[in-house]
Amino acid sequence: MSNQKTSMDVFFNPKSIAIVGASESFKFGYTMTNYLLSSEFKSYPVNNTKDFIFGHKVFKNIKDIPDDIELVIIIVKNESVLEVVKDSVQKGAKGIIIETAGFSETGIEEFSKIQKEIEIIANESNVRIIGPNCVGVTNFINKFSTADIDFDESMEEGTISVIAQSGVLGNIFIEWSASQKIGFSKTVTLGNKIDVDEVDMLEYLEKDVNTNVITVYLEGVKRGPKLIEVLKKMTKPVLILKNGRSEIGSNAIRSHTGSIAGDDKIYDTIFKQYPGIYRVNNFYEMFDIAQVFATQPLPKGKNIAIITSSGSLGILACDEIERLGLNLAVLDDSTIKKMKILAPNWTSLKNPVDLGPSLFMNFNQILDAVLNDKNVDALLHIFAVPQKPIKTFSLPVKPHLRELNKLSTKLEKPVITCVFGSRWIVDYFLKDSYKYKIPIMAQISHAIKAFKHMYDFGISNKSNKS
Amino acid sequence: MSNQKTSMDVFFNPKSIAIVGASESFKFGYTMTNYLLSSEFKSYPVNNTKDFIFGHKVFKNIKDIPDDIELVIIIVKNESVLEVVKDSVQKGAKGIIIETAGFSETGIEEFSKIQKEIEIIANESNVRIIGPNCVGVTNFINKFSTADIDFDESMEEGTISVIAQSGVLGNIFIEWSASQKIGFSKTVTLGNKIDVDEVDMLEYLEKDVNTNVITVYLEGVKRGPKLIEVLKKMTKPVLILKNGRSEIGSNAIRSHTGSIAGDDKIYDTIFKQYPGIYRVNNFYEMFDIAQVFATQPLPKGKNIAIITSSGSLGILACDEIERLGLNLAVLDDSTIKKMKILAPNWTSLKNPVDLGPSLFMNFNQILDAVLNDKNVDALLHIFAVPQKPIKTFSLPVKPHLRELNKLSTKLEKPVITCVFGSRWIVDYFLKDSYKYKIPIMAQISHAIKAFKHMYDFGISNKSNKS
Repeated sequence: MSNQKTSMDVFFNPKSIAIVGASESFKFGYTMTNYLLSSEFKSYPVNNTKDFIFGHKVFKNIKDIPDDIELVIIIVKNESVLEVVKDSVQKGAKGIIIETAGFSETGIEEFSKIQKEIEIIANESNVRIIGPNCVGVTNFINKFSTADIDFDESMEEGTISVIAQSGVLGNIFIEWSASQKIGFSKTVTLGNKIDVDEVDMLEYLEKDVNTNVITVYLEGVKRGPKLIEVLKKMTKPVLILKNGRSEIGSNAIRSHTGSIAGDDKIYDTIFKQYPGIYRVNNFYEMFDIAQVFATQPLPKGKNIAIITSSGSLGILACDEIERLGLNLAVLDDSTIKKMKILAPNWTSLKNPVDLGPSLFMNFNQILDAVLNDKNVDALLHIFAVPQKPIKTFSLPVKPHLRELNKLSTKLEKPVITCVFGSRWIVDYFLKDSYKYKIPIMAQISHAIKAFKHMYDFGISNKSNKS
Repeated sequence: MSNQKTSMDVFFNPKSIAIVGASESFKFGYTMTNYLLSSEFKSYPVNNTKDFIFGHKVFKNIKDIPDDIELVIIIVKNESVLEVVKDSVQKGAKGIIIETAGFSETGIEEFSKIQKEIEIIANESNVRIIGPNCVGVTNFINKFSTADIDFDESMEEGTISVIAQSGVLGNIFIEWSASQKIGFSKTVTLGNKIDVDEVDMLEYLEKDVNTNVITVYLEGVKRGPKLIEVLKKMTKPVLILKNGRSEIGSNAIRSHTGSIAGDDKIYDTIFKQYPGIYRVNNFYEMFDIAQVFATQPLPKGKNIAIITSSGSLGILACDEIERLGLNLAVLDDSTIKKMKILAPNWTSLKNPVDLGPSLFMNFNQILDAVLNDKNVDALLHIFAVPQKPIKTFSLPVKPHLRELNKLSTKLEKPVITCVFGSRWIVDYFLKDSYKYKIPIMAQISHAIKAFKHMYDFGISNKSNKS
């Protein structure tokens, strides 16, 4: 492999771009082509059957472009990809993203052979190749993207970066996270990993100043020992979702990205062995936890306080706290005294502080009392009040996110809000969650797991390095 | 206890109702009072300080009402509840729902004593009491409710019934399920369970013609042996969510509904021992699985087919299938032949059938081929296509729910659709999911677990009884 060659940065900050296979037809690559050609990124469409695309002059061949080309995006048919790769190398491109599918993942000899030939070119030249069978990269900082997404108002910039194997899933990650106001920094989908793999990307993102948390969706790994070596050295938290735990799952991986899944137990051991590397069960959990790492201070201890409007959900949180080896904070007498003045006589003021529907009243003072308690290291706020009472009462019910953020920042204690109920309530909270950097989630188990990983990260030597 | 007394039906179909503590103020009970007084249910407001409420004459005392009263709903302060219960018994009420909180769950001697006295009255008379510390019942068939909800257009009628301990959570169940188009039949929240408990409700719902699936949220059980006896005899599937697995969770339960959680391992053993009784991990899972039981035929075998637009998510499904001991269906050669004509050359046509973005094209024919395959007992359809391509292409992209329903019904094979992406896509599917009885969910693990429980239920003797 060729680590001393071009940096991964060419993929995220290219000075000039050729889109080979560009077209105006409504097909894969349409949105990307339209977006890049109308953007400030210097982009050139290449297509041997067209003269103009979206009003831009088209070049028959990449070699005809009267300019240096740093990055080539290939979306031609699988049979034509090899030729375009050869032309791109001759043109002096530093990076190539092959989005086209239909190679080794098909299991068909003919297509696997083409992939092999492209791989040889990658090894023998200075060019770096992402793909094939992917949608490439998206950089949320400079708004460069080779995927069919657009940067609408729902997408926020953040410090979470994503390394994913699958193109479709990569885009799903972006859309779901946008709907939850989880902000991304950089995303990349790697496909069949002919050249660039998760090792390259982990090394790049470790040094990337805009990335604080790294999430990885893996199907198979080609450079196992090297991956372990890199994971060991990471100083940023890494959350890994690894499919193919089962035999039939592993077989399916071969047809998807041509990867070998490997023995799942080995992965599990590796992931457990290194501090700062956390295995997750699904992508909702992955991004919920990543968002806590990205927005909250690390807890200084493992004593969790709970303020809830639903006793039942408070109990569920207790179960998770015990299961993961954290502590339910024992509130100081002075804290309970302060709360007694503020809450109705029927509320339970031990931890979990169960305020029932009275969560509406005096919430800020109770929050202040609990979070200031020296025995409390982190706070879970469970907001579960059915829509109807809120709408009916027209009470000054506020998500309190500003206050949560203010206190959390001042006291350096992490805070998570879990919201339950109809969409109306969830939207009400999500509206300001980005502004006030309070993670909003629908699963208490994700929140407690986030505290656990944050605590572990805090006591590892990693947090000192960064 | 007094099982031979009044039937639970008085709570769901009362001929006449008194609302004691009724008021026009914006507080707990407002929506319910307003709704019942303006409904066709014969309802009388009782309040000793008002003359009229929402234009209805108010009675100072329940005994002043010149009519028989079957059901009394109590929302007065905790100190006044005992008096109202005594009056209600004298009035000849058959059922009482005490919604007021502030009894044994407070841990305060004075309030626990009042609860004890009410309990004695319940035991010594023919009256049945639900509560205290609950929001009572909702009947989605006749639209009777003692909870602060209203029957807006988002709420669908279904055959799933809910027994919950907690009032707040009960309402959250209703709102979340409405947002997912999961239809309910009857819901009840039991609170501190002074008299009516899950045993009474299980016996009632087992005979209820409008209930096909029963979901239970439990914190503690007072009649353990009786519960086991009833669970053994149930012929309908029962899904149970039990909190308080941990010691600190059990302690929190005491402050919530005054229940004793009991040793979790005992519950786990009981739940595993009886066919048709399934323990779930959270309420999302509970209602996702219940919806499959409520809308789909039981699978005749354990061979699952997957049609997906995301290879990665197909692999995840494979992992779950193997983990739960189901089989990935081996498609017949004739099925693969049929599909080869319909799909692009780069798609993977083994099971999981990974159509990628070509899921749009020829979906109905591929669906027909796969579901008609004699080796297939159930189908998971994974729809994961980012929003942008769909919106841009203006292709005839349809959720295909009508076709899924038609085939599923004809062939008597269950079908589940998992949808991934932005809200726009999910809404697009949910719009018709109720009409065509196709369960839509966001978690593949829930879908596979549903197939597993359905299969187990099918091979148990229970499905023959019902």
